[in-house]
Amino acid sequence: MISQLEKYFDRLWPICRSITGNGLRESLKIVSELASMEITEVPTGTQVFDWVVPKEWNISDAYIITPSGKKICDFKVNNLHVVNYAIAVDKKISLDELKKHLYSIPEMPDAIPYITSYYSEKWGFCISHNELNTLEEGEYTVFIDSTLEEGSLTYGEAILNGETDKEILFSTYLCHPSMANNELSGPLVQAFLYQKIASLPKRKYTYRFLFAPETIGVIAYLHKHGIHLKEKLEAGYVLTCCGDAGDFVYKQSKRINTNADRAAKHVLKNQTIPYSVIPFSVGGSDERQYCSPGFNLPVGSLTRSMYQRYKEYHTSLDNKSFISFEAMEQTVNTYFDFVRALELNEKYITTIPYCEPQLGKRGLYPSSTEPLAARKLIHDRMHFLTYADGEHDLMDIAEFKGISIFDLEEHIAPLLEAGLIKKA
Amino acid sequence: MISQLEKYFDRLWPICRSITGNGLRESLKIVSELASMEITEVPTGTQVFDWVVPKEWNISDAYIITPSGKKICDFKVNNLHVVNYAIAVDKKISLDELKKHLYSIPEMPDAIPYITSYYSEKWGFCISHNELNTLEEGEYTVFIDSTLEEGSLTYGEAILNGETDKEILFSTYLCHPSMANNELSGPLVQAFLYQKIASLPKRKYTYRFLFAPETIGVIAYLHKHGIHLKEKLEAGYVLTCCGDAGDFVYKQSKRINTNADRAAKHVLKNQTIPYSVIPFSVGGSDERQYCSPGFNLPVGSLTRSMYQRYKEYHTSLDNKSFISFEAMEQTVNTYFDFVRALELNEKYITTIPYCEPQLGKRGLYPSSTEPLAARKLIHDRMHFLTYADGEHDLMDIAEFKGISIFDLEEHIAPLLEAGLIKKA
Amino acid sequence: MISQLEKYFDRLWPICRSITGNGLRESLKIVSELASMEITEVPTGTQVFDWVVPKEWNISDAYIITPSGKKICDFKVNNLHVVNYAIAVDKKISLDELKKHLYSIPEMPDAIPYITSYYSEKWGFCISHNELNTLEEGEYTVFIDSTLEEGSLTYGEAILNGETDKEILFSTYLCHPSMANNELSGPLVQAFLYQKIASLPKRKYTYRFLFAPETIGVIAYLHKHGIHLKEKLEAGYVLTCCGDAGDFVYKQSKRINTNADRAAKHVLKNQTIPYSVIPFSVGGSDERQYCSPGFNLPVGSLTRSMYQRYKEYHTSLDNKSFISFEAMEQTVNTYFDFVRALELNEKYITTIPYCEPQLGKRGLYPSSTEPLAARKLIHDRMHFLTYADGEHDLMDIAEFKGISIFDLEEHIAPLLEAGLIKKA
Repeated sequence: MISQLEKYFDRLWPICRSITGNGLRESLKIVSELASMEITEVPTGTQVFDWVVPKEWNISDAYIITPSGKKICDFKVNNLHVVNYAIAVDKKISLDELKKHLYSIPEMPDAIPYITSYYSEKWGFCISHNELNTLEEGEYTVFIDSTLEEGSLTYGEAILNGETDKEILFSTYLCHPSMANNELSGPLVQAFLYQKIASLPKRKYTYRFLFAPETIGVIAYLHKHGIHLKEKLEAGYVLTCCGDAGDFVYKQSKRINTNADRAAKHVLKNQTIPYSVIPFSVGGSDERQYCSPGFNLPVGSLTRSMYQRYKEYHTSLDNKSFISFEAMEQTVNTYFDFVRALELNEKYITTIPYCEPQLGKRGLYPSSTEPLAARKLIHDRMHFLTYADGEHDLMDIAEFKGISIFDLEEHIAPLLEAGLIKKA
Repeated sequence: MISQLEKYFDRLWPICRSITGNGLRESLKIVSELASMEITEVPTGTQVFDWVVPKEWNISDAYIITPSGKKICDFKVNNLHVVNYAIAVDKKISLDELKKHLYSIPEMPDAIPYITSYYSEKWGFCISHNELNTLEEGEYTVFIDSTLEEGSLTYGEAILNGETDKEILFSTYLCHPSMANNELSGPLVQAFLYQKIASLPKRKYTYRFLFAPETIGVIAYLHKHGIHLKEKLEAGYVLTCCGDAGDFVYKQSKRINTNADRAAKHVLKNQTIPYSVIPFSVGGSDERQYCSPGFNLPVGSLTRSMYQRYKEYHTSLDNKSFISFEAMEQTVNTYFDFVRALELNEKYITTIPYCEPQLGKRGLYPSSTEPLAARKLIHDRMHFLTYADGEHDLMDIAEFKGISIFDLEEHIAPLLEAGLIKKA
Repeated sequence: MISQLEKYFDRLWPICRSITGNGLRESLKIVSELASMEITEVPTGTQVFDWVVPKEWNISDAYIITPSGKKICDFKVNNLHVVNYAIAVDKKISLDELKKHLYSIPEMPDAIPYITSYYSEKWGFCISHNELNTLEEGEYTVFIDSTLEEGSLTYGEAILNGETDKEILFSTYLCHPSMANNELSGPLVQAFLYQKIASLPKRKYTYRFLFAPETIGVIAYLHKHGIHLKEKLEAGYVLTCCGDAGDFVYKQSKRINTNADRAAKHVLKNQTIPYSVIPFSVGGSDERQYCSPGFNLPVGSLTRSMYQRYKEYHTSLDNKSFISFEAMEQTVNTYFDFVRALELNEKYITTIPYCEPQLGKRGLYPSSTEPLAARKLIHDRMHFLTYADGEHDLMDIAEFKGISIFDLEEHIAPLLEAGLIKKA
């Protein structure tokens, strides 16, 4: 998986994406190779709850020519140089006038910041503070070849059907230009997670994978599918900032103890990468929409180095050297373990409620002369049986004993076959 | 406020108060200058629940003449010298006989203890242990000029009306002779708190301020108003031992999580003076009556150095040098913050339940180029909105984010004006 | 009690017990001298839930003769040498063949292990690993004079009637051959506990004391009495591994906060021997049957050094030198304190719900001049009264103040006599 992750990263990296436009369309097409998706176009001007889909933005070139004729802030070198959603400009201005349109970070003099202006029409350039300090007095040419016109907002959705109509949602965004942890990690992890779930021999749940621009894209999606999700969604996760080697951070849904949260916390407790669990907060990503008061869906988010918690966030330093494809694969696998736990989790009820069943006569009990490992197994099996009361699910039963739900997995088939349990 | 506190302290200090009598009446009259109150007289012999209002006690003089003619235990020097509620006496007795009527504290040889005898008719004097040790053999004259007669028990109540019929109660006692932390601090803090609440431009709650003798006075009051309070009381506090510079101690109501307790704990968590929270216990003051099983009212108590926890308690050493008028003002302000939190606390409900409202188009969202402080504010605002679900009140919402309810205060008006929230 | 404990231990020690047979019958007869019991015989072949009562096993002799004519693994020296439930054998075999039937513990070379084979018919000997290593090549005579025939399983039950039909159960097992902590401690502690409870002047609860073989014996008992217990049982405990000087371990019932658990945890908190509280688990003893999903009875277990937690467990080293009769007496007394707490625990309701009762006029309140101890007592009494609300029981009330239920005991009679409380 690691080399494939890198291959797709390299293809997606140079594209200038935004919340609308051809960069977004082109990126969705590439990701579609991994996770076959249906594309939806939402026209400019469509009212979606409290929001209106904005004009579509496209850009072909942008740069500044210094008084001495040097081309700087070249969009073709780094697409972060242009304020995302900047309107077209082509004129000559003084250094003082130019500086009103330049953004830099004095505390991080090497970094080009990532600045957007989706809902107010203006132009601007982003530049490293070091370069800003070298600008001489004189006449500058500023040039942005962009359009802001009627068009549409694009999102893609991949679906994997399961045996029931209960659903699991994975949601990520694909609207950032060239940055790595936030955000190419999200779409990449989600696409490779799709592949692992697609390869399951059977699925209890139906899985939705949404690739949409952040905020407005998810709002547009919920405008169409929110009521359906409110009925059907069993668990969901927002994938973002999940591609570097930082510790795991799990942000809980607003409801705290949904199955999304239970599965995430249970799996994290039983794996080896350090992790923390934090409460829901609005200062994040699309979980803000999913958990808004009217929906309040069971949606959490597992990240590595989280938005606003690493200094490279939203700058040109959040690049390929910041991330790790090995770590990205771990994230895929951990999300997949959430899925495995959710698929496995059921309530069972014993068929022999009074006193313990005699396992020995069914060949399910090791004799007292067998080795310790067999006796550890039998304890798990008896523990499973004594709590198979139709009220506690497998995740509860595992937690009661401080073991993993995956430790109980091997006992399900033999106990079902022996007729000792049935699904509640 | 500090100099006013001291002025009233100095006027109240010398008066010999008890649970009935003219000292109590005179003290209530002085406090009335600050908190205009209605005075109630409950006649001797009135049955109030399990209790009967006792005879009224008044005293004009008391002293002992030693064999060598020296006047000691002079009531006019320190009114603690006489056992409170002592009956009249005027006779000559031996030192041995006298000693049966003398109270001192061997472990605190400089202190005159505070001793009462409300419900058994006897006489006695209180004396420092050092002075007790100097008494020579011989004949002593003991003289107490007191009366114990049909009369009445007096209490005063000040009321500040509010917009609703829900009530907040403050209750303190004014029956102790010359002691400072316990108890002049209680009536003083309550009177100045009255003044601050009276100055509020509007009040949601109606406020009652009870100044009554401890135990029997509050029992007489509850006999008349208890059922009303059971219906209307939203929160209440007993004010006592709140005048020295010790850490805050908040004693919870028996019900633990009433709004009285929630407001107190929330405010204390968000201020700077060290504090502790302790459970309800009977070994205190009038909260014992308010929280008795039949009433079980939402009444807690915020103190500084608490009864029975400081060695000067109930002795002549609990005097002006033990207390601090600066600390007393802090206590007034902290109680006033309880009131501010209770007044502010409401449930709001968003008018845009599905996905987040677009704050930008309403001028309520800073652009991404604005400074960090603006972005901190916006997080508080969005946090408020996402939890404005009509179920959680402002105190809950503040606690979820670990901020103060007063941090949310500034967002209420703009969000109401923008039509984004309404009262639930 | 200590010398009596030792006397009975010495009489029971040499008997070879099993889950059926005359060793079990003889042992029950000896314990009957302390706790008069009714004996029940359950015939071989009886179906009890998922189990069938096995054939009865009896044994009179067993040994091995080495090639050099030495008698080893002599049953008459130590009955652990024979696999419990071994079938008869009398033949000559090679060392290689013999070794397939020998059990030892390489990590504990001095210990003879305890091995059983209740439900598969085979023969075998247990031997210390050191002795095993000395065995020379050659022809061995193996001899076991045992029978496995139609018969019955025996258990005994002692009952002490009380005033109500609510019951308390004590359950222990008496099926292990010569071992001390597991298991002679269980029957001994239970028999002496019977004597203490029998000596109570009156009992609220009816007490059952079950002495049965582990697992199958309790399953047979529950087959007959389980539904009755489900209706009547207030609390129960499994007595095992309770005879050495190890710390107390209390294993909770599956329901965690039954009265059995509350009494145990409350008493343990208020005594001086170190203790721990652990959750229910199946890897124990007969609580597995009592807490099976269909019954889920309020049954916990107080042990000292617990099964599987001490290295001598299930070996010949769990002998008289491992245990302590002083410790065994402590265990008896602690279980008796559980009984005292359960007997004492009631809900009371005050007859004076509004404000506090006037204790002084009833002679129940010390004057302010009485010593501190009297004032501590009065705080307990007032605490009792203020929580006597008919909802909280005495154990709750004691826990609220961090005192023992036995501290409240002395207040019950005076408050009942004064008419201040009644049973709720």
